[in-house]
Amino acid sequence: MKKLILLALALPSLASAQSIGGRAAELRDAALNSDTVAWDFVEGLTTEVGQRLAGTEAEARAREWAVRRLTGLGFSNVRIETFDMPVWVRGEESAEIVSPFPQRLVLTALGNSGATPPRGIEAEVVGFDSVAALEAAPDAAVRGKIVFIDHHMMPTQDGSGYGQFGAPRRQGPTIASRKGAVGIIVRSIGTDHHRNPHTGVQTFGAGAEPIPAAALSVPDAEQLQRILSRGRPVRMHLTLTPRQTGTHQSGNVVAEVPGTDPAAGVIAIGGHLDSWDLGTGAIDDAAGVAITVAAAHRIMQAGPPRRTIRVVLFGAEEPGGFGGDSLYARHRDENNVVLVGESDFGADRVWRVEFSLAAANAALADRIAASLAPLGILRGPGSADAGTDLGPYRRGGAAAIDLNQDGTHYFDYHHTPDDTLDKIDPAQLRQNVAAWTAMLALAADAPERIEPAGAPPAR
Amino acid sequence: MKKLILLALALPSLASAQSIGGRAAELRDAALNSDTVAWDFVEGLTTEVGQRLAGTEAEARAREWAVRRLTGLGFSNVRIETFDMPVWVRGEESAEIVSPFPQRLVLTALGNSGATPPRGIEAEVVGFDSVAALEAAPDAAVRGKIVFIDHHMMPTQDGSGYGQFGAPRRQGPTIASRKGAVGIIVRSIGTDHHRNPHTGVQTFGAGAEPIPAAALSVPDAEQLQRILSRGRPVRMHLTLTPRQTGTHQSGNVVAEVPGTDPAAGVIAIGGHLDSWDLGTGAIDDAAGVAITVAAAHRIMQAGPPRRTIRVVLFGAEEPGGFGGDSLYARHRDENNVVLVGESDFGADRVWRVEFSLAAANAALADRIAASLAPLGILRGPGSADAGTDLGPYRRGGAAAIDLNQDGTHYFDYHHTPDDTLDKIDPAQLRQNVAAWTAMLALAADAPERIEPAGAPPAR
Repeated sequence: MKKLILLALALPSLASAQSIGGRAAELRDAALNSDTVAWDFVEGLTTEVGQRLAGTEAEARAREWAVRRLTGLGFSNVRIETFDMPVWVRGEESAEIVSPFPQRLVLTALGNSGATPPRGIEAEVVGFDSVAALEAAPDAAVRGKIVFIDHHMMPTQDGSGYGQFGAPRRQGPTIASRKGAVGIIVRSIGTDHHRNPHTGVQTFGAGAEPIPAAALSVPDAEQLQRILSRGRPVRMHLTLTPRQTGTHQSGNVVAEVPGTDPAAGVIAIGGHLDSWDLGTGAIDDAAGVAITVAAAHRIMQAGPPRRTIRVVLFGAEEPGGFGGDSLYARHRDENNVVLVGESDFGADRVWRVEFSLAAANAALADRIAASLAPLGILRGPGSADAGTDLGPYRRGGAAAIDLNQDGTHYFDYHHTPDDTLDKIDPAQLRQNVAAWTAMLALAADAPERIEPAGAPPAR
Repeated sequence: MKKLILLALALPSLASAQSIGGRAAELRDAALNSDTVAWDFVEGLTTEVGQRLAGTEAEARAREWAVRRLTGLGFSNVRIETFDMPVWVRGEESAEIVSPFPQRLVLTALGNSGATPPRGIEAEVVGFDSVAALEAAPDAAVRGKIVFIDHHMMPTQDGSGYGQFGAPRRQGPTIASRKGAVGIIVRSIGTDHHRNPHTGVQTFGAGAEPIPAAALSVPDAEQLQRILSRGRPVRMHLTLTPRQTGTHQSGNVVAEVPGTDPAAGVIAIGGHLDSWDLGTGAIDDAAGVAITVAAAHRIMQAGPPRRTIRVVLFGAEEPGGFGGDSLYARHRDENNVVLVGESDFGADRVWRVEFSLAAANAALADRIAASLAPLGILRGPGSADAGTDLGPYRRGGAAAIDLNQDGTHYFDYHHTPDDTLDKIDPAQLRQNVAAWTAMLALAADAPERIEPAGAPPAR
């Protein structure tokens, strides 16, 4: 009897020695319990490089660092694929209420902000509680003034507030410029209450001259709102001296786990290597890079999968997805990427999986969802979009899988000086690696063909 | 029956119309449920003045603001009592790791820090994990270098970690200077993980030339520790340009609720009006001022107490307790202050009361403790020291009562840019006002004589 039981228990692991897909649960649990590759990657990148603004020498150092690390981990075809892009850099930044209550406020320039003269500008502040209110204001109420836009972002698990509450940052500067404002300050697009402002990209639309544009920290925005509520004219001195430095080189770092069946297509995953300049880019997005690298590394160590796994550490995501566009433009004619997935929403645990798979691949989706369920991951009702970096492939028709991370605290740190290593919980990071490992084991080794998912529905 | 019950219920409130002490519970509960004086005070001071560094024009504006507010609230004998003090002010501050991993670190100068040349200094960093380790190092290991001292402060409810973990800030600069260091940076004396460094005063001891001295934010200190742990020489470029500006005027703002019995002595309470320059000084110490003002105001409105209540809004506590020393020196010969109490540990709820009362006043202590218990306040085993501001009276023999606030989160914000209004919970602020109101009602109206408590035991 005893021998029979042992044999029965041993059978799955005998089988698993031959099939990565059959070993998905085992590989998943090993990652959950003992992965160190992801932590070492994010610790190393944030410590030994730190911030890595796109198109700067810091981002170039990050690429060299990543090539060394990926080569050391045993990846194949490790390479840098460069591209050029326009580079904006921060300068001096300060703001002071001149009257009625003199005091400094903490802010930071938004991407592509225009500059004040070196000694700054002084103007009256006019406040609005939304982009719509600014839009509705007569130009005369704005002309020559510094516009302030308030809002009240609340945390959501799926990050769905970023679109709505991000409008003051994305649309505010263009509207304010068109109305003749001399500058604009917005409440940070963030959910914390610390004196760390949230930067982020914005682009002046056609006909809008660049004006100084910055984000106040949330406590400073609330302070300004209180000062404005006293009903007296509020004058501000604002100094921002960022500049456009012209065209510089960025690049994607690519590494592969070669598959045994070239005809089965490539699975492309990754995150972005660049970061904003204020923090060390730990959760945005050293973590995403580290998670996908660590999961691919586990598959590599388990033996060659059927499909090649291509891990891409994208350059220049923050200023506008230049790396993702470059990768797709360079490789789309190869027509061999069948499935994509991006990790770029922090380092908290994966709570949901969503698929954009063809109906013919329903069984694969079921197998993956079943393998993720023991990690506390539920199957969501939506589709996968593969984010900024791999979205171009998805929009080109490739299948995609999104492993959604819990974003309840993501906008506490996103794009701030506070995006540092200490914000990452090693156990939650391992859960991410476990989820990606299970998904990759099943998808890379799937015996069926992975079909094109078709173009996503229009929004 | 019904009438009898109503009469029985009405009796205590009839009695209370004649005795403030007899109405302590009623006044306490009214404060707990509906006080707005404290919130309006802290909101007004932090919004309309903001930071108020001791000896600067901002602190002078705060005094004028306070005089207006206290007069408006109906206090008597509202006045400013000025004194002179040496004033140190912050300049530029930045730090950058030059090698092996170039990156900026976030820090802020400590009070009385020396200055670098305008363009900064560059030197190797030598790290120590404690003041004792620095003390034990041979001078040759420190000379010409920038000293870094790490430590690991953990939160405590009673704030008892501040003494032990504050040593790198208080003693580190003097020791480093004596050993020939060209600068010193310490891990912030704080319990948070945000990129907001904690400033605070330190004083160079005899024979120690002022050197640049600063605190790194906790994430930056951890980053530097990781960089040092790689074992390669670490070079830093450090720029700090603070300066001593000479002697300037500060002052205490004093307001009174006159008592009916001058022979019964004065009760002196308060907090400090000055703040560090980085935040708006909401929890340190607009809250303490607001709490004691609001409680005294409740006693004033309830009718004259037996003893005069003197509320003092101290100037220049942060740089070294100049306001407290000045008040005591100016008034000690009046010999009429019988009881003191200070509020200077944030705005979270009072969790404990401790007494330094003569044995003859044991019944008064019992009555006060009983009145505080319904607020969730326990009676502690220690004695009261009345803090920095009113400690001189206590050390001179006056009785004291400490209403200890929960400090678990105090050192998350203390002395940082993050000490702003949003850190205050209005409900917890009201609990403070309720506790102070109950204590004042019973102490100011106590029929017995409040005896000297004698000098405190030596530590």
